[in-house]
Amino acid sequence: MKLLEERILADGRVLGENILKVDSFLTHQVDYQLMKAIGQVFATAYAECGITKVVTIEASGICPALYTAEALGVPMIFAKKHKNITMTEGILTADVYSFTKQVTSTVSIAGRLLSAEDKVLIIDDFLANGQAAKGLVDIISQAQASIAGVGIVIEKSFQTGRQVLEDLGVQVTSLARIERFEDGQVVFGPADA
Amino acid sequence: MKLLEERILADGRVLGENILKVDSFLTHQVDYQLMKAIGQVFATAYAECGITKVVTIEASGICPALYTAEALGVPMIFAKKHKNITMTEGILTADVYSFTKQVTSTVSIAGRLLSAEDKVLIIDDFLANGQAAKGLVDIISQAQASIAGVGIVIEKSFQTGRQVLEDLGVQVTSLARIERFEDGQVVFGPADA
Repeated sequence: MKLLEERILADGRVLGENILKVDSFLTHQVDYQLMKAIGQVFATAYAECGITKVVTIEASGICPALYTAEALGVPMIFAKKHKNITMTEGILTADVYSFTKQVTSTVSIAGRLLSAEDKVLIIDDFLANGQAAKGLVDIISQAQASIAGVGIVIEKSFQTGRQVLEDLGVQVTSLARIERFEDGQVVFGPADA
Repeated sequence: MKLLEERILADGRVLGENILKVDSFLTHQVDYQLMKAIGQVFATAYAECGITKVVTIEASGICPALYTAEALGVPMIFAKKHKNITMTEGILTADVYSFTKQVTSTVSIAGRLLSAEDKVLIIDDFLANGQAAKGLVDIISQAQASIAGVGIVIEKSFQTGRQVLEDLGVQVTSLARIERFEDGQVVFGPADA
């Protein structure tokens, strides 16, 4: 997605060896126009798949997932990272290790929100090691819903995430694929959409 | 907001003495159509205020805040609940105690995203004790930005949140105001919009 790649080059900041900070338009401050355009591209890519639910994980996945849901005309569910006292019965869970934050969190979705009739499109902001998306695949499979694919805003394609998901038989659609960082600059490989 | 009150009565679930669960359309699964309508109402209420940024707190405030930002044509910022390793320099913070989760968390916004020229509309999903919104007011004041008001989707008006914010000189606009729970049912008072 050319518009996204241009924005990453213009406003993304490379910190250290492999951290890309996009907090001026995606992960902290959000540009709704770009998110809307991203939602449209994901919706177009999965238009023929009969999607019934878009699923993401709090918090940075929510904006692109919301506009994808709007473009597809279906509800969006954001998985929770922590259990809380108002959410107890019938929850589906998976443990997810974050290499960025170096903590394991329990990701959960209320079981009654997904059923065997659902066809789910997973959306997330980043794909690196694939652990978050793998946790969502696990939860959605527990609900016996089917998975049409995973839509990723920014993939670090030098990490293992895509392979992890493809090994589970899940299709990945990334709008920007970072091949490597070179002298503090992002070098893109060919994107999926 | 009649549409919202009707939805709360239809799909909200009252648990225990004063917990309202709206996880089928707001706090877990999200109905984008309702969120879009909510964003429109907030934007209309603050249309003449020269808003430059919409600020919320992860995660359930993000959807109504995003559509409010879209309707106003400005960026949205979601404050973070935990510091992380990609966000270190120049962050503004406030400690927020959650009575629901019974934990204190540090809420933060990158200082460079707000300036003295900004006029901010705060949006959040719930107002109960007002601690989250108060933390945002604190952070925005640290940035010397001004605050036009706080837009709340669901206010528990039998709790102290509104008073806490009004004591800080901040206007509150709630779309649904729960006066009390009676026999497991929600009883609304007059809303602000």
